[in-house]
Amino acid sequence: MKLLEPSKVQLKLWMTLQQAKVRKREKLFLAEGAKVVKDLLQSAWKARALLILQGKEDHFAEVASAVSGEIDVYRLNEKEWQRLSQDSSSEGIMAVASVPEMPSSDDSQVMRNDRLLLLHEINNPNNLGALLRTADWFGFKTVLFSAGSVDFTHPKVVRTAMGSLFHLTLIAGVDFAAILPGFKASFRLVGSDVGNGVTPHPCTGRTALLMGSESHGLPQHLLDLTDERWRIPGVGSAQSLSLPQAAAIMMYACTSK
Amino acid sequence: MKLLEPSKVQLKLWMTLQQAKVRKREKLFLAEGAKVVKDLLQSAWKARALLILQGKEDHFAEVASAVSGEIDVYRLNEKEWQRLSQDSSSEGIMAVASVPEMPSSDDSQVMRNDRLLLLHEINNPNNLGALLRTADWFGFKTVLFSAGSVDFTHPKVVRTAMGSLFHLTLIAGVDFAAILPGFKASFRLVGSDVGNGVTPHPCTGRTALLMGSESHGLPQHLLDLTDERWRIPGVGSAQSLSLPQAAAIMMYACTSK
Repeated sequence: MKLLEPSKVQLKLWMTLQQAKVRKREKLFLAEGAKVVKDLLQSAWKARALLILQGKEDHFAEVASAVSGEIDVYRLNEKEWQRLSQDSSSEGIMAVASVPEMPSSDDSQVMRNDRLLLLHEINNPNNLGALLRTADWFGFKTVLFSAGSVDFTHPKVVRTAMGSLFHLTLIAGVDFAAILPGFKASFRLVGSDVGNGVTPHPCTGRTALLMGSESHGLPQHLLDLTDERWRIPGVGSAQSLSLPQAAAIMMYACTSK
Repeated sequence: MKLLEPSKVQLKLWMTLQQAKVRKREKLFLAEGAKVVKDLLQSAWKARALLILQGKEDHFAEVASAVSGEIDVYRLNEKEWQRLSQDSSSEGIMAVASVPEMPSSDDSQVMRNDRLLLLHEINNPNNLGALLRTADWFGFKTVLFSAGSVDFTHPKVVRTAMGSLFHLTLIAGVDFAAILPGFKASFRLVGSDVGNGVTPHPCTGRTALLMGSESHGLPQHLLDLTDERWRIPGVGSAQSLSLPQAAAIMMYACTSK
């Protein structure tokens, strides 16, 4: 099959997608790596272009053929690739993907979930990517983000989430202080609190799990709105459990029987 | 207090500590960051020198005074610092630390533990650092590594473990196939198995938890030596849970009541 050569304008656009403001304006982001691209193409999210590193055409011929006719497939030379790639040892494949339209936080689709994950001011992209991968595993299919969170199309989030991003409904810029009172009618609100709380336990009803950042935890005014606080008991001398691990344990406990 | 200027020979040695073979030969490694250095100095591990970035002397005056007289404290200029620092936004403090003598895997000190963590061929340093931090939290105070694991004094391991490294007994280069039969008398051997296994549960007796790498899991010949296999049930569409999260859940479950 014939691969296209990108124009300078296209290359420049794709390169500037490293900036959050450009991703927001263009509603586009880059998704790099074979597993990530595969999950994107199999999901309801839309790929706009497929980019393949020169020399990797044969290796990715199958995926290129599968999308051919639907989206444009480009060949990039080594120099062009280096300007876009975020991976130290790149596999040589990435997609230009559309940021999908997401429902608002009070949409009936959101309110029908059994499990919600609410993330307050998580700004470490590797932590966020890890959280999304775990949320996908445990069936927390809708994730809400406060203002001040890292953009979920940040390249490191996309990479660390390992394709799980495309299985989730993600709602950004949510004011938790404003919505939590209204959520109480539908969900049991559980907040993570490193200082004080009960041991995580199975969730029998519909539950919204609220996590804060690794550095600051949840602010008091949000903890005050929860129905229950969870703390993971430790026996060692570590000062804290890292956020992705604490969140994984809480999601596991919640979905345990 | 007076800070020393490092010699060229010292700087060169410290710089080459980025190489595993040099760390092994010199039995030294670098520990960077305020939290990491603080935990090192409060632990039974030995610091050999304290290095402070020029301009940060006042900020770290207290810690420098505390160790003064016991170990040498050096001031490094920006250029010297850049050659040693692994952090993109460095705090400006690091220690040169000794790799301690560790017991052998059949030492009575090892056999007296209630919980052991056994790690087979974990070669991602960020994963290993995260595992050690979690092990510290849940009281798995002794960790054994197979041959083919990343060196636990790798800069990224030290960084990600966030000081937990210095709270643990770490035994490297262990042949699990050789020692597991002998461990059976003292420990219940639990192996992580993504394919097949029971849901994690509280561990009543003394337990050795065995984890494989994220890419390959545990090899069959080691799984065959376990008493029990654990698998974390998922409900979503993620292909796998990441290793640090799976390990955190298993350590949590094991130490739950």
